[in-house]
Amino acid sequence: MQQVALALSDIAVRYGCEVLGDPDATVNCVATLSGAAEGSISFLANPAYRAQLAETRATAVILTPDDAEQCATNCLTTANPYAVYALVAQELYPEPPGQAGVHPAAVIGEACELGDGCRIAAGAVLGNRVKVGANTTIGPNCVIEDDVSIGRDCRLMGNVSLYREVVLGDRCRIHSGAVIGADGFGMAPGDSGWIKVPQVGTVVIGNDVEIGANSCVDRGAIDDTRIGNDVKIDNLVQIAHNVVIGDHTAMAGMSGVAGSTTIGQRCLIGGAATIGGHIEVADDVSVMGRGNVSRSITQKGVYSSVIPVEEAGKWRKIVARLKRIDSMASKLHDLEKAVRAMRKDGDEPE
Amino acid sequence: MQQVALALSDIAVRYGCEVLGDPDATVNCVATLSGAAEGSISFLANPAYRAQLAETRATAVILTPDDAEQCATNCLTTANPYAVYALVAQELYPEPPGQAGVHPAAVIGEACELGDGCRIAAGAVLGNRVKVGANTTIGPNCVIEDDVSIGRDCRLMGNVSLYREVVLGDRCRIHSGAVIGADGFGMAPGDSGWIKVPQVGTVVIGNDVEIGANSCVDRGAIDDTRIGNDVKIDNLVQIAHNVVIGDHTAMAGMSGVAGSTTIGQRCLIGGAATIGGHIEVADDVSVMGRGNVSRSITQKGVYSSVIPVEEAGKWRKIVARLKRIDSMASKLHDLEKAVRAMRKDGDEPE
Amino acid sequence: MQQVALALSDIAVRYGCEVLGDPDATVNCVATLSGAAEGSISFLANPAYRAQLAETRATAVILTPDDAEQCATNCLTTANPYAVYALVAQELYPEPPGQAGVHPAAVIGEACELGDGCRIAAGAVLGNRVKVGANTTIGPNCVIEDDVSIGRDCRLMGNVSLYREVVLGDRCRIHSGAVIGADGFGMAPGDSGWIKVPQVGTVVIGNDVEIGANSCVDRGAIDDTRIGNDVKIDNLVQIAHNVVIGDHTAMAGMSGVAGSTTIGQRCLIGGAATIGGHIEVADDVSVMGRGNVSRSITQKGVYSSVIPVEEAGKWRKIVARLKRIDSMASKLHDLEKAVRAMRKDGDEPE
Repeated sequence: MQQVALALSDIAVRYGCEVLGDPDATVNCVATLSGAAEGSISFLANPAYRAQLAETRATAVILTPDDAEQCATNCLTTANPYAVYALVAQELYPEPPGQAGVHPAAVIGEACELGDGCRIAAGAVLGNRVKVGANTTIGPNCVIEDDVSIGRDCRLMGNVSLYREVVLGDRCRIHSGAVIGADGFGMAPGDSGWIKVPQVGTVVIGNDVEIGANSCVDRGAIDDTRIGNDVKIDNLVQIAHNVVIGDHTAMAGMSGVAGSTTIGQRCLIGGAATIGGHIEVADDVSVMGRGNVSRSITQKGVYSSVIPVEEAGKWRKIVARLKRIDSMASKLHDLEKAVRAMRKDGDEPE
Repeated sequence: MQQVALALSDIAVRYGCEVLGDPDATVNCVATLSGAAEGSISFLANPAYRAQLAETRATAVILTPDDAEQCATNCLTTANPYAVYALVAQELYPEPPGQAGVHPAAVIGEACELGDGCRIAAGAVLGNRVKVGANTTIGPNCVIEDDVSIGRDCRLMGNVSLYREVVLGDRCRIHSGAVIGADGFGMAPGDSGWIKVPQVGTVVIGNDVEIGANSCVDRGAIDDTRIGNDVKIDNLVQIAHNVVIGDHTAMAGMSGVAGSTTIGQRCLIGGAATIGGHIEVADDVSVMGRGNVSRSITQKGVYSSVIPVEEAGKWRKIVARLKRIDSMASKLHDLEKAVRAMRKDGDEPE
Repeated sequence: MQQVALALSDIAVRYGCEVLGDPDATVNCVATLSGAAEGSISFLANPAYRAQLAETRATAVILTPDDAEQCATNCLTTANPYAVYALVAQELYPEPPGQAGVHPAAVIGEACELGDGCRIAAGAVLGNRVKVGANTTIGPNCVIEDDVSIGRDCRLMGNVSLYREVVLGDRCRIHSGAVIGADGFGMAPGDSGWIKVPQVGTVVIGNDVEIGANSCVDRGAIDDTRIGNDVKIDNLVQIAHNVVIGDHTAMAGMSGVAGSTTIGQRCLIGGAATIGGHIEVADDVSVMGRGNVSRSITQKGVYSSVIPVEEAGKWRKIVARLKRIDSMASKLHDLEKAVRAMRKDGDEPE
């Protein structure tokens, strides 16, 4: 897939690295340190792989100055190897350019506005009054309902669903199966069953947002659900109605946020973590994988509630004890009293 | 999107409210108490927002008689403000009427029966012998396999998948990405690997059921999977084969039920809660978010097993202690014995 | 749906069973023991249903020799009744044969290779250079990107998405809404926000793999994500980038694996269980439902970390105690010291 070759000297200039070794060496693909072959560029960001520096067959490695001396090949040194690697990889693997235009097997409603260079793939169905920004791609079999507005340079992969009135900023990427703008889960208990509460808000998504495969962002009940700029959402994530997510926050796979909760900026929500409804999470909070946030978090920091597995028999005993922890605490309290009483009776122990 | 205006007097008559204020005032949109402008109607159901009554700029607020005196504007009083709000919102925001008929870019199999006023959108693919009730909408790019039967006044949004023979009642709403009738997860261990167990049951869904985006309801292994009337299922929910769910039960996002389990009527299953296989859950059981039900529940009530997050360092200590709780219990037991022995030796403390 | 009748004598020969009863009796459908009618065949694999043997109206029951004497009807005895049942059911319920050929409403890119007898359904969109093996079915509205390779005798149900370059073996079954090959969740923190790390690996899937509805398997960051032969994945499962899953492993619904983790062969991952990133799980490991694996598991065995629900009030007390378990441990330690000291002072208790 790679079509590009880069000289180390060019990379160094572009991203402020120093070359140790041959500045004229060129690379045309990325590789892991252990899997690298001639012509590839690799990186070291995780110290667990440092020992591989001595053996790597990569043409060049991006790493910090401190790690450079252990490296068997050309080095590009920088304070942030992973970021430089990402930028180099973007250059080596440009997005395959889709063919601009509306495929004959796409269906476009009335009064749509399609920007220059945009691409509407086969099977995509656009409702009425849909706006698609310049150079945006709507993938095959996407369903875009009435009055949706999509910014420029976005990429919707195949089988994406955007409900009516959803707003997407620029440079967003939405993966297959994602559903944005479905009804929030709102119903009132009535005398003979549930009464549906119309969800009349929509979803407003900022710029540079990525949403993973089969993730869901529900429309607001009255006001809108809001996803900030540069928010990154992995696969199978649930964002309920009226949630607000601050800029640069990232949510890993299978995490979820219940309704009307506000999450701050630059938060990191681990995989399968869940955040309850009607609460606030401060800026710069990290929730570890599987953590459960049921009350507001006002202080930045790292939070966890996960319990790692044990061998099942041992775990059963632990759970049985846990379920009786209240009686353990009572016994402990009684014992303390008894011992205190005995000590009053006799000599004070040292 | 709103096109309707309602006089407070009309609302009062229709839903049995009392008007305090100007019965001729009209409303044409809904709003939150704090975000309301002239012409909007709001409601108070959650006491946390009561203080906003004094400042709201809504034209009218639906609330209980007790809350009315704190309200700065016209009131509609009722015992169930949220239900009345839902009904009023339904009137103010009618479903956008789709155009009846079969879109030329839909594909319809043989011997299908399409009811009066039904709408088959672009890209929808119907197999053979599919029945679609009157006034039902099949959204764009839905896939409806052979022998599916869908009742009247249903709405399938875009990209819904119904496998063969699935039965849907009337007035159901199925959100994008939902998959109903996929194979249950059944396989027998054989000598050289797994042997697939054909899933020959189907899924039978009652009336007034809503199923959220990207949720899955698997077909039965032998008998059918059954979803009762007025069941409400949120996004990314998993219902395994041969599950039976009673009328009016609601399941929040990311919850799941393993195979062959029966859930009663009017249960409330919280977000990300899981219910194990081959068990029974009684009527009127609430499982709090993230709860894990692994044994049958025979008594109605509220059940939980969730542990809220702590600061990660503190949590690590808690887990380390928990993992040694068995030895704590043993020590406690030994101490009790020792203290009892000592007390026999001396005076009984008071 | 059944169209086939089988004589017990034929079943016995084919699968090495012994007939107790009438070898000429025929069966044409499957049934549960309790729901069986004349003409049906049932099985007993779960001892919980043994009592139903005396009352069943099935024409025949597949069971172990030990259970045969309690059975009211014809028996087929075997050491593995569930496996024989699965094979018989496969015969009685053959896959409905789709019509081979490319539907006029399918869209096929350039230079695709379509094997004999394959079927491309309406609305399916294939990119360029896609290979589809003989007798493989691509369901309605599937999106298959450029350079995908699919083996023979596969079945992709409706609305499946395969990203570019994904490789599928033979006899795979992919359920609706599954997304294979979406970008892994990789981004580097840069000075002004996240920098996307191109995901340049793909997904390589072996033979006889089944992937459930709305499950996701992400493409590799550099190397490929790899799913072994005969791996069975249920609905709403998340497989992150660079995961490797060994042959015959099964993952139940809503489970997930974080990036770069290797899972061994013949593992059983329970529903909603999660496995952290960058670890290894040995062969033959079972993780019970909701278990959380955050460190490598090197020994085969059964592992758990699930806590069953309690009545919510009682559970709140348990959690409150758990959160103070560290202070309980300290008090216990102090008491032990105090009692030891007292015992030194006085007589040793018996």
